Amino acid sequence: MSDHKQQPSNDSILNKSLTRRDVLRLAGTGGLGLILGGGAIGGLLTAENKRKEGARVSASNAEERIPFYGTHQAGIITPAQNFIYFAAFDMTATGSKALQKLFRAWTAAAAAMSEGQPVGDESGNYNLPPVDTGESAGLSPSRLTITFGAGPSLFDDRFGLGAKRPPSFTDLPAFNGDQLEPQWCGGDIGVQVCADDMQVAFHAVRNLARLARGTAVLRWVQEGFQRTAAADPKSGTPRNLLGFKDGTANPAVTNDQEMNKVVWAQSSDGPSWMAGGSYMAVRRIRMRIEIWDRSTLKDQEDTFGRYRGSGAPLGAVNEFDPVDLTAKDKSGNLMIPADSHVALARGDGSVQILRRSYSYSGGMDLKTGQLDAGLLFISFQRDLFKQFVPLQQKLAKNDRLNEYILHVGSAVFACFPGTSKNGYIGEVLF
Amino acid sequence: MSDHKQQPSNDSILNKSLTRRDVLRLAGTGGLGLILGGGAIGGLLTAENKRKEGARVSASNAEERIPFYGTHQAGIITPAQNFIYFAAFDMTATGSKALQKLFRAWTAAAAAMSEGQPVGDESGNYNLPPVDTGESAGLSPSRLTITFGAGPSLFDDRFGLGAKRPPSFTDLPAFNGDQLEPQWCGGDIGVQVCADDMQVAFHAVRNLARLARGTAVLRWVQEGFQRTAAADPKSGTPRNLLGFKDGTANPAVTNDQEMNKVVWAQSSDGPSWMAGGSYMAVRRIRMRIEIWDRSTLKDQEDTFGRYRGSGAPLGAVNEFDPVDLTAKDKSGNLMIPADSHVALARGDGSVQILRRSYSYSGGMDLKTGQLDAGLLFISFQRDLFKQFVPLQQKLAKNDRLNEYILHVGSAVFACFPGTSKNGYIGEVLF
Repeated sequence: MSDHKQQPSNDSILNKSLTRRDVLRLAGTGGLGLILGGGAIGGLLTAENKRKEGARVSASNAEERIPFYGTHQAGIITPAQNFIYFAAFDMTATGSKALQKLFRAWTAAAAAMSEGQPVGDESGNYNLPPVDTGESAGLSPSRLTITFGAGPSLFDDRFGLGAKRPPSFTDLPAFNGDQLEPQWCGGDIGVQVCADDMQVAFHAVRNLARLARGTAVLRWVQEGFQRTAAADPKSGTPRNLLGFKDGTANPAVTNDQEMNKVVWAQSSDGPSWMAGGSYMAVRRIRMRIEIWDRSTLKDQEDTFGRYRGSGAPLGAVNEFDPVDLTAKDKSGNLMIPADSHVALARGDGSVQILRRSYSYSGGMDLKTGQLDAGLLFISFQRDLFKQFVPLQQKLAKNDRLNEYILHVGSAVFACFPGTSKNGYIGEVLF
Repeated sequence: MSDHKQQPSNDSILNKSLTRRDVLRLAGTGGLGLILGGGAIGGLLTAENKRKEGARVSASNAEERIPFYGTHQAGIITPAQNFIYFAAFDMTATGSKALQKLFRAWTAAAAAMSEGQPVGDESGNYNLPPVDTGESAGLSPSRLTITFGAGPSLFDDRFGLGAKRPPSFTDLPAFNGDQLEPQWCGGDIGVQVCADDMQVAFHAVRNLARLARGTAVLRWVQEGFQRTAAADPKSGTPRNLLGFKDGTANPAVTNDQEMNKVVWAQSSDGPSWMAGGSYMAVRRIRMRIEIWDRSTLKDQEDTFGRYRGSGAPLGAVNEFDPVDLTAKDKSGNLMIPADSHVALARGDGSVQILRRSYSYSGGMDLKTGQLDAGLLFISFQRDLFKQFVPLQQKLAKNDRLNEYILHVGSAVFACFPGTSKNGYIGEVLF
């Protein structure tokens, strides 16, 4: 391990013309900033069209609206916005009527906010509290998406939903090394709020929490960010707080067939009400960045199995070059260590998930005096126990990255299919 | 108090052509997004020039560099960026040599990062830890500014700086209602990092902390945001998390004379080393947003003394209309309550400060189950005890807003004058 394989060339995909395949992959990571609402996925656009679209969008990103209504919920295959404000709620009321009422109110509010409109009627009775809290007045929709899902605990007698529970939909099993803290786990309902503006995202969560008063309370929340599109004129794959590109291997969100295979629950999977929905895994992964920062570049690159600068697999040249797990150097050692993150996450390529993670920075950990920062890992998949669970079991056991990370939070949610203007989110449960 | 004064008209300054005075005020709030580095303040630009400049900037905000070197430090009269990452450090080493070495290293790093460059040489020895942590590689400078100041505790025997302490530069006195928590207070050195990209700001603090290893440790940090410029095409005054515009009354940063009166310490003030510097007050102000959200619009507007929608003073039409504290309604009651925030903060207009605050959202308060969100109040002034202290004493005693806010953190820093490429920040102390 003493001879490190320096990257063959400094060429980067970003300095070259994009191939069609590159474009599809970039779209999958949010790289091109395509505007694809939940229900707006049509056929496969040509690469040329997509590049034009990408250019248009990055110029006026924040003005864009992403429709709330559609076949699928927005915020799943939507290219990642700049910010997230994730909120997990617990129901305090019981009975299906209370839940339905909440879902109806949230649907109307989410649809309005996605259009940049305030919640409710703002005619302004001075002797009542304002219906909308007002901090996003005058701001553009900023590609706001609000994605709702039911946690395993919602499928119980409180709401008469026991029979609706998807087969084997439970909390995740314990993984090797987990150090979960209850304050970052679970929730009857999960709401993923993403936008290109943090104030717009904050406003959405706050107003949903307000509408839930008397029915549900916040259980935990987590703010997150990635580099803003404006700061990254070349629209590269975003980097995590360990300095490495994250999301390179995501499947192409513009490929319907792939999304049906990887992301969208199918009616044949059962239960039928989840058809067109998706299962979300959320893990709050703290990074031991002070320890990471003391490790050598060689260790860091061997840990990920990629070059830090270009994101290319070790031994390759460009970020999107094929990952060859059998390639060896002159001494006969594997170029990409078998216990590196990319080697384990990729495996034989048969198991895929759609990652949609954000970095978080939560001030200081008073116990250690170190930064509480890391990754709010989020992935969407058709089947948690066929995709995320076996993948994470493998990573938890052997991933070299485990030396530098700590899973402190965990939750799963069954994200409903989309709804139309005549319906409401979660309606399929009743 | 039963008849509320509805706003006379819905006209807003934003729908009308801007007067020169309007433009100056907008510039003071960051509304026009002018690029004015610390050392780049020349004469008064014409309003017309400023409007052109503003338009150019909002199109490519994130690409802009703000020079680190200059007569004054950047980040003080610089129009507010979208994000802040504030960091307070405590020295662990002693002796003026250690402090000088730290300041030199920080100066070089801050200057590089302000230009969008990595910290140190990136030639890449694979068997050493990387010099730069890498998460901002490929990102634009995003108007990054890094502003350094010395806390009162730095002026002691550890560094032989006892004689350099500015007269009466101490921690702030206790104010009525303060509920300060040690975890949000003080610091030997304060570093205000602002940028239009959160990842760029995070990267800067992390790398400064890394350079300080063995010399200084983080004492507390706070992330903050405001609405992004991209989400606010009309460039209005940003709103705080209570839904009201915040910063309307700021002095004009383009007016040298006003800045010399309000912001910059003068050599005649003493000590001479602070000439061209400024004193920074930082207060972490938690907002009881759940209680606020239950109050009527009337109560909210009477609390601020302004209309929520337009930001205009009660009884007036437009945001920047004069605040007439003597105006009365038909019943003979004051239009603007005497204990409203605007009435007390304005007073007779003789005391001004330059506010440069950000909203923060720090997850949930586990003790109360409510959101820990509010304002990271920051102001710059020529003299803390002639400007901020008397103002805050008045507010702490009588401000109607106190029902909805809680001061939980407090710190002050003497921000050095700017430095040139041949010098380093804080050099004036030695």
